[in-house]
Amino acid sequence: MAPKALNIGMIGYGFMGRAHTNGYKRVNDFFDLPLRPVLKAACARSAEKIQAFADQWGYESIETDWRKLVERKDIDAVDICVPNNLHKEIALACAANGKMILCEKPLAMNVAEGEEMCQAVEKAKVVNTVWYNYRRVPAVTMAKQLIDEGRLGKIFHYRANFLQDWTISEDLPQGGNALWRLDVEAAGSGVTGDLLAHCIDTAVWLNGKVSDVTAVTETFVKERMHNLTGKKEKVGIDDACAFLCHFQNGSLGLFESTRYARGHKALYTFEINGEHGSLKWDLHDLHRLEFFDYKDEGKLRGWRSIHVTDGEHPYMNKWWVPGLQIGYEHSFVHHVRDFLEGAAKGEPCGPTFRDALETQKICDAVLASGKDRSWKTI
Amino acid sequence: MAPKALNIGMIGYGFMGRAHTNGYKRVNDFFDLPLRPVLKAACARSAEKIQAFADQWGYESIETDWRKLVERKDIDAVDICVPNNLHKEIALACAANGKMILCEKPLAMNVAEGEEMCQAVEKAKVVNTVWYNYRRVPAVTMAKQLIDEGRLGKIFHYRANFLQDWTISEDLPQGGNALWRLDVEAAGSGVTGDLLAHCIDTAVWLNGKVSDVTAVTETFVKERMHNLTGKKEKVGIDDACAFLCHFQNGSLGLFESTRYARGHKALYTFEINGEHGSLKWDLHDLHRLEFFDYKDEGKLRGWRSIHVTDGEHPYMNKWWVPGLQIGYEHSFVHHVRDFLEGAAKGEPCGPTFRDALETQKICDAVLASGKDRSWKTI
Amino acid sequence: MAPKALNIGMIGYGFMGRAHTNGYKRVNDFFDLPLRPVLKAACARSAEKIQAFADQWGYESIETDWRKLVERKDIDAVDICVPNNLHKEIALACAANGKMILCEKPLAMNVAEGEEMCQAVEKAKVVNTVWYNYRRVPAVTMAKQLIDEGRLGKIFHYRANFLQDWTISEDLPQGGNALWRLDVEAAGSGVTGDLLAHCIDTAVWLNGKVSDVTAVTETFVKERMHNLTGKKEKVGIDDACAFLCHFQNGSLGLFESTRYARGHKALYTFEINGEHGSLKWDLHDLHRLEFFDYKDEGKLRGWRSIHVTDGEHPYMNKWWVPGLQIGYEHSFVHHVRDFLEGAAKGEPCGPTFRDALETQKICDAVLASGKDRSWKTI
Amino acid sequence: MAPKALNIGMIGYGFMGRAHTNGYKRVNDFFDLPLRPVLKAACARSAEKIQAFADQWGYESIETDWRKLVERKDIDAVDICVPNNLHKEIALACAANGKMILCEKPLAMNVAEGEEMCQAVEKAKVVNTVWYNYRRVPAVTMAKQLIDEGRLGKIFHYRANFLQDWTISEDLPQGGNALWRLDVEAAGSGVTGDLLAHCIDTAVWLNGKVSDVTAVTETFVKERMHNLTGKKEKVGIDDACAFLCHFQNGSLGLFESTRYARGHKALYTFEINGEHGSLKWDLHDLHRLEFFDYKDEGKLRGWRSIHVTDGEHPYMNKWWVPGLQIGYEHSFVHHVRDFLEGAAKGEPCGPTFRDALETQKICDAVLASGKDRSWKTI
Repeated sequence: MAPKALNIGMIGYGFMGRAHTNGYKRVNDFFDLPLRPVLKAACARSAEKIQAFADQWGYESIETDWRKLVERKDIDAVDICVPNNLHKEIALACAANGKMILCEKPLAMNVAEGEEMCQAVEKAKVVNTVWYNYRRVPAVTMAKQLIDEGRLGKIFHYRANFLQDWTISEDLPQGGNALWRLDVEAAGSGVTGDLLAHCIDTAVWLNGKVSDVTAVTETFVKERMHNLTGKKEKVGIDDACAFLCHFQNGSLGLFESTRYARGHKALYTFEINGEHGSLKWDLHDLHRLEFFDYKDEGKLRGWRSIHVTDGEHPYMNKWWVPGLQIGYEHSFVHHVRDFLEGAAKGEPCGPTFRDALETQKICDAVLASGKDRSWKTI
Repeated sequence: MAPKALNIGMIGYGFMGRAHTNGYKRVNDFFDLPLRPVLKAACARSAEKIQAFADQWGYESIETDWRKLVERKDIDAVDICVPNNLHKEIALACAANGKMILCEKPLAMNVAEGEEMCQAVEKAKVVNTVWYNYRRVPAVTMAKQLIDEGRLGKIFHYRANFLQDWTISEDLPQGGNALWRLDVEAAGSGVTGDLLAHCIDTAVWLNGKVSDVTAVTETFVKERMHNLTGKKEKVGIDDACAFLCHFQNGSLGLFESTRYARGHKALYTFEINGEHGSLKWDLHDLHRLEFFDYKDEGKLRGWRSIHVTDGEHPYMNKWWVPGLQIGYEHSFVHHVRDFLEGAAKGEPCGPTFRDALETQKICDAVLASGKDRSWKTI
Repeated sequence: MAPKALNIGMIGYGFMGRAHTNGYKRVNDFFDLPLRPVLKAACARSAEKIQAFADQWGYESIETDWRKLVERKDIDAVDICVPNNLHKEIALACAANGKMILCEKPLAMNVAEGEEMCQAVEKAKVVNTVWYNYRRVPAVTMAKQLIDEGRLGKIFHYRANFLQDWTISEDLPQGGNALWRLDVEAAGSGVTGDLLAHCIDTAVWLNGKVSDVTAVTETFVKERMHNLTGKKEKVGIDDACAFLCHFQNGSLGLFESTRYARGHKALYTFEINGEHGSLKWDLHDLHRLEFFDYKDEGKLRGWRSIHVTDGEHPYMNKWWVPGLQIGYEHSFVHHVRDFLEGAAKGEPCGPTFRDALETQKICDAVLASGKDRSWKTI
Repeated sequence: MAPKALNIGMIGYGFMGRAHTNGYKRVNDFFDLPLRPVLKAACARSAEKIQAFADQWGYESIETDWRKLVERKDIDAVDICVPNNLHKEIALACAANGKMILCEKPLAMNVAEGEEMCQAVEKAKVVNTVWYNYRRVPAVTMAKQLIDEGRLGKIFHYRANFLQDWTISEDLPQGGNALWRLDVEAAGSGVTGDLLAHCIDTAVWLNGKVSDVTAVTETFVKERMHNLTGKKEKVGIDDACAFLCHFQNGSLGLFESTRYARGHKALYTFEINGEHGSLKWDLHDLHRLEFFDYKDEGKLRGWRSIHVTDGEHPYMNKWWVPGLQIGYEHSFVHHVRDFLEGAAKGEPCGPTFRDALETQKICDAVLASGKDRSWKTI
């Protein structure tokens, strides 16, 4: 039976707008699903820019006011792909209009906003999800399976980092377009919301809730030219952030992110150590999962490099053949796949707004701890 | 300006049919091109199967006789995605009908067939290409650039292998559908045409022509159940093949492929050693290029692991951001991109049939040498 | 000219007793030096055990009372290889008797003891060193050279960890012989003094002093059988410890050690990120130094894996030929080499007691922070 | 009980003279053995040079005529560490004088010489061994154990290479001292006897005898200044050599060695693929063994990186603790250990002369095949 159409309204057209759209366009080629996304409308303030985007990717129409898009009867689901400071308002309007919502991460500027958003979608009973896409890299999904199967036993340690090096130059400006991530007004925070939030979402998914944190934050470059004001302005974001924490299961956590780690482009790694085994993953080689199994025969124990490309690995029976890897963008295709499966049944697709609020709480606590140098209970 | 339509007729619907179709569907999302492939028709003997494929991928119509497809006026280019023993006949018909041809590798069953195909397309002046897709993995394309820039200097060694392990079980049958690759009638040869041909195409592209070869071939499992006859039949393909060679530039070559290398799914690797530097690549981590530069300061010399995901790397300015890798399938998208650029101007897109014939010559010589245990001049 | 004898008195005969002795016995085979260590006497409470050790390794005589050894006129230098709670007393006696001292790390049980030891050796003007041996793994020494040459520029980040997994079993007892490291009375602390101290010594050497720290410590197994009392006793050591810090040069530090990281035997790694480049090292492959140089041509940038086995690498012109690696024990041979060079001239060999006191200060602050959950200024 | 003295007479003082001597000096510190090597005499034509060597390493006396050394009553075992063209004559003299022999590899200049040497030692019944030291790198010894335990099952493939890059410069002369390896008169061959011989010894040990070979040899630099004649002379050695072979067990072999592989210092690697599993090893990280076990649960299969440093790994219970690696030189210590164990009982220590003759046969066949381009039966 042919899948039913699900009309998508996309707000935004940047890096994430492309990544999500690619997910919508590809998912039915590879997965048998009850729904098929239709690229109904794309929206941005600049008519010229959004028209070019719509032409390139095949959106049927454009809007220049997101309120209009949200109110359109022919839109089933809205994708919020705009800077963080706009998430809340749009989400509330979507909920009010009964639209499903796919919101870019982090959920909000802070916990207060996030809580309001959660209440809105829960009251409106609209299907909602937040694009923490790394959960659906097959090797990461497989880590979740192995942990849930009890293969690691009691957990002692979780560590993750997300290291980049693209803001080292003092000449890089802040604000506007691609550089809104450096502008605290638009982004809310620096690496904490942008990078650590990914690490935290995965961590809570794999290892459960966090009880308390202590953090350090740093802004290495104190002033940068601002693209919107045309003047040198104080930099309000955190360039680097690290924190220690306890998880509720008694394990210790260690997290770090920075945009000043020369030589690393997008080095998101995590490792989890348990009584019976350990797991490691690295975004730079995202199709591999490293697994140490203490149950292996003593003299033969070693870290196994699992090339997660077999038919029995998560999502992989729909792609190519063993040994042939997929890439970063496929995590979005998988997210869309799971969202559509859920949406057809009116079921949530994790991480929901409520799940993402948990990450927001930790981010807020981390930033607060970075300011006053004390432990914070979550 | 909107790209012009290029109507594609696809013959076949297997693994390669999907990989090529994905290339056609995605290329214009990411690349600005003069042409846009339109999925006009798909063809196979089974109406049921090809209809399902057409529905899944969005082909507008189906055919069950490839001759009809080839003669359709609304088809501009034919994609030959069928077993090797059908390439020649279809290609000749395409040429006779003035169709552009995209032919799956290897070109033909042998040099005689290949030569006939080359003459046909050259006489008919139809644009043609053969899907040796690995040339367009960005790290491989970059290897070509570095060699052409003279960074390796005089070349001493080239070595490549393509190791798999999927036919070790004696219970695996041969023939029919997905297993035609084990049937010498359909495939012409075993690993030589299937795997070594890829290694050879890349090698000749990177390091120039081969002058002579000596080879060993082996069939480890001598008899297998045949899906078409229902009986145990002699296995006619080579399960493993290795050869030594000289290149015309004076360097030595060493090649090996097998389907009996336990632990390797699709380990295609090559390494090239020159006076000033060396390069290594591995399909299992296809986004990395290893480079050793003798011009580096002495005490600091080491193999550099280049994560080929930056905007200045081949094809990569159209994808995501540094550090975020693409996968196997993107090599086909890039091939389509280059094919469309050429087709718009009536220019060839390498490897052409003539280029692929060079690989066929080496394959034939390798198989002959494996039989009579003597060196063969190419 | 033949080197002059330097008579060594060794107190202890365990793992470190063997490693140091091996250093004394081998150094003159490979290095041309003004002094030659002579294994004059070995000392332990058990005459039987120390005699066996002396026979095995070739010590000329034994003592069962360290005070006697320290007072012997024929001893030039005393090597303190006993549990941490005995370092101070022996060191003070050595200083009083004018003996050179080579003291196992960590320097002392705490800063107060360490300060007393520093004052004693400085007053007595005896040559002294502490066996933080990893400074003299050639790849680590080379890291120091590259940093001192300014190749990394301004430093942003330093991270290190030392991960083991040998105490996960609850059945492992504490105290006595090889297990004194689990007994807080003998060891003073757990992983902080045993493992983190190594990380800290290297860090301060490479990146300068630390200004403040915040830490978390954990004891996963709360009670263990005690070998000395024969009863289950509370475990007083830290099983795991992690801390965040600022260095005086403005960079951020992140340190972790544990004996509960399943799959890691002795994974000591560090990484340092600077404006112009980065360095990484890993004890599990100790002969490699990873170096990222931002000054490399853009498209060719990548981490270089330097196999530190060439004649131009630190210490390596005395060993084998390029590509042939040395091991863990060689770090002690190099330490002895540098100690002898210094001793012949009456010059110190770092890390001196005073240098090691800096590490002790950080360890003490880390442990204190782990207790009261606040930042500590060093 | 104290071990009995075994008096060693060393002929030669180069790289191998040092490596072997280090083995003699260290073995009893770590292993409990019935014999203890005593460095009785060292011999070379230059009294000055051999005296310096004896002083450095502690040999009791020197000789300048190897015939005298071989005849000395106080010598039990002779170590032949001289260029290959002298092996036979010295070995025959040793046998005639009833001396045990430890001969540097390769055994001889050719099979005829080797056969004569075998007959001499067998007739004289003197204990003999050849220094193919890599058998006793713990990871390699462990590979042998795993294969003998049947963990790989039926073997399909064996491949090995030994890649270096130190003779690329045309300005490097040949002949005399350290460069005798480039002089065909002294060395007999180039990479075949120097490097491939190591690969072959390991291969035959692990995978059994070879039945036939076909090879290619190349001399990239045709003329070099000769240190002994002072003139440019034709280069008689092979700079590179590769060969294909069948083993008697039906598996295929692929071997390559060169001194023109830019970026590789001493990259000796081997891999063996069997029905149930595969093994890989690499001299550049010699303490690791990679193992793929098909018996692992399907979705969790991957290459395991075994850090061969545990007490249950071969030889390792005598060294340090898990995670702390030993190096290249320890393979010689282990060889001495096994030699002494055998010698005390009058038992052989492999590889014996007879074992090494098998490698010589393959080397000779490879060189012959390289000349006349035909397959050679062993």
